[in-house]
Amino acid sequence: ARKIRSPRGTELTARSWLTEAPLRMLMNNLDPEVAEKPEALVVYGGIGRAARDWQSFDRIVASLTTLGDDETLLVQSGKPVGVFRTHKDAPRVLIANSNLVPRWADWDHFNALDKVGLMMYGQMTAGSWIYIGSQGIVQGTYETFVEVGRRHYGGDLAGRWILTGGLGGMGGAQPLAATMAGASMLAVECQPSRIDMRLQTGYLDRKADTIEEALAILEQAKADGKPVSVGLLGNAAEVFPELVERGIRPDAVTDQTSAHDPLNGYLPAGWSLAEWEEKRERDPKLVETEAKKSMAVQVQAMLDFHAQGIPVLDYGNNIRQMAKEMGVAKAFDFPGFVPAYIRPLFCRGIGPFRWAALSGDPEDIYKTDAKVKELIPDNPHLHNWLDMARERIRFQGLPARICWVGLGDRHRLGMAFNEMVASGELKAPIVIGRDHLDSGSVASPNRETEAMLDGSDAVSDWPLLNALLNTASGATWVSLHHGGGVGMGFSQHAGMVIVADGTPEAAARLERVLWNDPATGVMRHADAGYEDAIEAAREHNLVLPSL
Amino acid sequence: ARKIRSPRGTELTARSWLTEAPLRMLMNNLDPEVAEKPEALVVYGGIGRAARDWQSFDRIVASLTTLGDDETLLVQSGKPVGVFRTHKDAPRVLIANSNLVPRWADWDHFNALDKVGLMMYGQMTAGSWIYIGSQGIVQGTYETFVEVGRRHYGGDLAGRWILTGGLGGMGGAQPLAATMAGASMLAVECQPSRIDMRLQTGYLDRKADTIEEALAILEQAKADGKPVSVGLLGNAAEVFPELVERGIRPDAVTDQTSAHDPLNGYLPAGWSLAEWEEKRERDPKLVETEAKKSMAVQVQAMLDFHAQGIPVLDYGNNIRQMAKEMGVAKAFDFPGFVPAYIRPLFCRGIGPFRWAALSGDPEDIYKTDAKVKELIPDNPHLHNWLDMARERIRFQGLPARICWVGLGDRHRLGMAFNEMVASGELKAPIVIGRDHLDSGSVASPNRETEAMLDGSDAVSDWPLLNALLNTASGATWVSLHHGGGVGMGFSQHAGMVIVADGTPEAAARLERVLWNDPATGVMRHADAGYEDAIEAAREHNLVLPSL
Ligand SMILES: NC(=O)c1ccc[n+]([C@@H]2O[C@H](COP(=O)([O-])OP(=O)(O)OC[C@H]3O[C@@H](n4cnc5c(N)ncnc54)[C@H](O)[C@@H]3O)[C@@H](O)[C@H]2O)c1
Ligand SMILES: NC(=O)c1ccc[n+]([C@@H]2O[C@H](COP(=O)([O-])OP(=O)(O)OC[C@H]3O[C@@H](n4cnc5c(N)ncnc54)[C@H](O)[C@@H]3O)[C@@H](O)[C@H]2O)c1
Repeated sequence: ARKIRSPRGTELTARSWLTEAPLRMLMNNLDPEVAEKPEALVVYGGIGRAARDWQSFDRIVASLTTLGDDETLLVQSGKPVGVFRTHKDAPRVLIANSNLVPRWADWDHFNALDKVGLMMYGQMTAGSWIYIGSQGIVQGTYETFVEVGRRHYGGDLAGRWILTGGLGGMGGAQPLAATMAGASMLAVECQPSRIDMRLQTGYLDRKADTIEEALAILEQAKADGKPVSVGLLGNAAEVFPELVERGIRPDAVTDQTSAHDPLNGYLPAGWSLAEWEEKRERDPKLVETEAKKSMAVQVQAMLDFHAQGIPVLDYGNNIRQMAKEMGVAKAFDFPGFVPAYIRPLFCRGIGPFRWAALSGDPEDIYKTDAKVKELIPDNPHLHNWLDMARERIRFQGLPARICWVGLGDRHRLGMAFNEMVASGELKAPIVIGRDHLDSGSVASPNRETEAMLDGSDAVSDWPLLNALLNTASGATWVSLHHGGGVGMGFSQHAGMVIVADGTPEAAARLERVLWNDPATGVMRHADAGYEDAIEAAREHNLVLPSL
Repeated sequence: ARKIRSPRGTELTARSWLTEAPLRMLMNNLDPEVAEKPEALVVYGGIGRAARDWQSFDRIVASLTTLGDDETLLVQSGKPVGVFRTHKDAPRVLIANSNLVPRWADWDHFNALDKVGLMMYGQMTAGSWIYIGSQGIVQGTYETFVEVGRRHYGGDLAGRWILTGGLGGMGGAQPLAATMAGASMLAVECQPSRIDMRLQTGYLDRKADTIEEALAILEQAKADGKPVSVGLLGNAAEVFPELVERGIRPDAVTDQTSAHDPLNGYLPAGWSLAEWEEKRERDPKLVETEAKKSMAVQVQAMLDFHAQGIPVLDYGNNIRQMAKEMGVAKAFDFPGFVPAYIRPLFCRGIGPFRWAALSGDPEDIYKTDAKVKELIPDNPHLHNWLDMARERIRFQGLPARICWVGLGDRHRLGMAFNEMVASGELKAPIVIGRDHLDSGSVASPNRETEAMLDGSDAVSDWPLLNALLNTASGATWVSLHHGGGVGMGFSQHAGMVIVADGTPEAAARLERVLWNDPATGVMRHADAGYEDAIEAAREHNLVLPSL
């Protein structure tokens, strides 16, 4: 199997930093430290890939290596399809992944096209080359857990524990986020390799083979006054109902199995891993049905916890929808995490801002950490996050950082990083991007746009405008995806990455893009009638002609 | 009711021609000469609107009037939602209309959102401000009919007649296209006003109230050796089966009722117009069901003609799909017009290129007509079209012209027009655009991408890449729509308009945009394996990394 690792340092493989950056980030997405299944080009989230196949990967690399600074490469579902002349302020790469005409936008059609090599599932940041490993999800999860503590437990999670399922590419961030937030965690995961990987990266503290063993560890931690995370080898569709039956009461319940992808992401109850793998090849329809049946069982257990007054939240894997399709009428009785905890942040354009050091030098990130603190001095929560992240999160692949910041801050940080590149304070340019799960970049009625105030959950004009505007503003690469997170048919979303190469031209682009991008989120939420967003729009003097 | 008419002449209302152009073209779309129902902002194609409501219209106009040449206006389903700073080479307007997350992308969800004022149906060129009246569709229809004649009647349609339904905004072009192509036509239309409008504009020759009367006129024309077009007042769902029953044999059969929109576009058999209008308000579900039942009857009659060996073609209104949903299993037995007649053109990037004279002066168009002939000297078919168009097509609103030209010609024409503006040969700038029904701009498995060679009919990455690339290349406005032509759920498509204002900057943009735009069509068809397209790509030295 091929091993991919991004080049480090200041020597260019491509013709400029604007093309070197996507090249390194594509490779970084496939770094064995970063990707879940690099040999299959799978980065995270079920079958989220960075390129359609190895031939496409090689051809993308070849194209980026020779691409001029007035040219743009088009990538269609992970395959490079064209190079066109544009101009210096245009993106160097434009990407469309996994998009299907709505009537055909389901897993059946997608899988058929995927199988014959016509498509690729891009997830959110896999096919748009800005996945940075589990860290990316840690802060989001951390902020959600902290918020759960604030709402339900007076801000103190000491002695509390959270039940969840799945320790995969994103789910693996949960145990660390929980302990950072002061809570213990019991995470049910069916693959031993996933548990071991999280132990190795320090995201998970302990492992257990039985419920008894796991509960004993949690008990001990409570006695010691120190949160602990336990990975329990098992099937969530079996363990969740078992806990209900035994009358065990977690303090919060969620799930991060890859329920959005019933063919590849969820082990049916009672099946061995070998059986699963084999039947996925031989009888995919059966796998899907059995997986969805098991999800229904797990969701029923979650509803039972919910009925006991325990906070239960869908963490964006669409498991409620799957259960509903299998007859669990009340599946949506417990809320998604976005309307419950994240939307107030989106209203102010706050979301998962992230950046990576193309030098490969961790010092570059530590310096940017310090710069963020300097530029945003009055946010103890943010400073705390940065300190803990530095201490507890190991870099995967190119050193990178994420922190949730909003409109008004993002462009200041981007321009400051650019100056640090220009002055030589940083060893090489920085790439700045974000998740597609952001304030203005996604329409996903079961997740990011669930229960919008005006009922506009399903309107996807917004992420399309976001992508068009980022293209017009001069982002370095822009992507439009379908189906990420919640699966085929359920979302449309846009990505954006921009390079701070230290030039004045980059500064101008950074100022525009990192302002406009979160501003579209404030605009979208203001249009839906959220007071917080209307206020933010006013505060930042956004020009919203219909408000 | 308000009457909108675009300003003419060289005095600017907005701050530059780049913003004056969208302003004039928006207004022109609502000119009573152009729009089907201007008081309701409906331009054509059922309920295809230019702006969401009058307030939105006024606000778009206000925004365009003050917009700077480094700013970009965002329009979401016909409502102006934001003004952002971009740069000179970025589009001045970015539009997303009628887009819904796929699982919710049907008429029910759309209508609910439309009703509460959250959405608008943009059709193809209605919401993207480049509809130019029936002329726009005449050439496409003309080329299709000519091609039918070539394939089935040795290139000679003399004495032949075509049966169709619908004389609306686009369907009204059929009779003129038919007689231009040398054939007679019987067009069944249920609204007298539509028949009268086509008589007035000279697109239709005669009207009739009964089948007998209509057939007699056709008979006489055959005897006279001169093609004639007849508008027959009636319901296609009644007339088509009646003709089958009587054993009448047309020489070709098609339909252009607004079948794609069962709520607003198709009169159920046996209903009066008043009844239809009233029930649309009171019982929309019933209207939809009854309309679809009648479509099934009409399609069955079309299948009967087909079984007799008569060429029958779906002209892109999705009537086969509707019939199929009502149980007509063989509905797709007769082909769509694109795979049957148009795709070979798309393979070479040929499609509905069009332009309008912002001066309002017909002379400007006549001069560009001459320029087209001068620059493309060896195409008698094209010259013939231009001559006939000048003679027989009355301008509606701003003088405009359409002709189907491809990759390699479009940018040359655009740059030549720009020089004519610069030299003062033309009185004012020209806007250049196209339909969304074009070579690289649409995914629509029941129409433009029906039966693609590689089975990629439903892959909509392509139109999204087209819109992103046109944005990156510097088009003046770019749009992304859903559901145009074939209705909600069945298509995604992109629009592009660019202004030739006579400046050298415009020349550079025109060269890029009018090359890249058709080139994405050649790329898309080459990727699907069409030899014609692969050859065109080679001939034009396109850089397609995976080929
Ligand atoms: N809020 C968000 O935006 C957000 C964040 C993170 C994850 N998610 C969603 O959460 C899901 C997980 O993402 P991921 O990247 O970790 O996916 P992944 O496929 O890498 O991991 C899923 C994990 O679940 C395990 N699993 C599958 N079935 C199981 C079962 N029955 N019992 C126990 N474990 C089981 C798998 O072994 C795997 O380790 C996805 O649906 C993703 O979209 C959403
Ligand atoms: N190839 C293409 O791209 C293409 C070109 C033109 C039109 N179309 C499609 O054709 C359809 C018509 O477009 P349009 O702009 O003319 O729409 P329109 O709504 O303006 O016109 C439809 C006409 O059909 C008439 N009609 C409705 N039900 C009827 C019935 N039962 N019998 C007789 N007449 C009936 C209406 O009175 C109306 O005049 C649309 O679905 C459009 O998308 C496709």
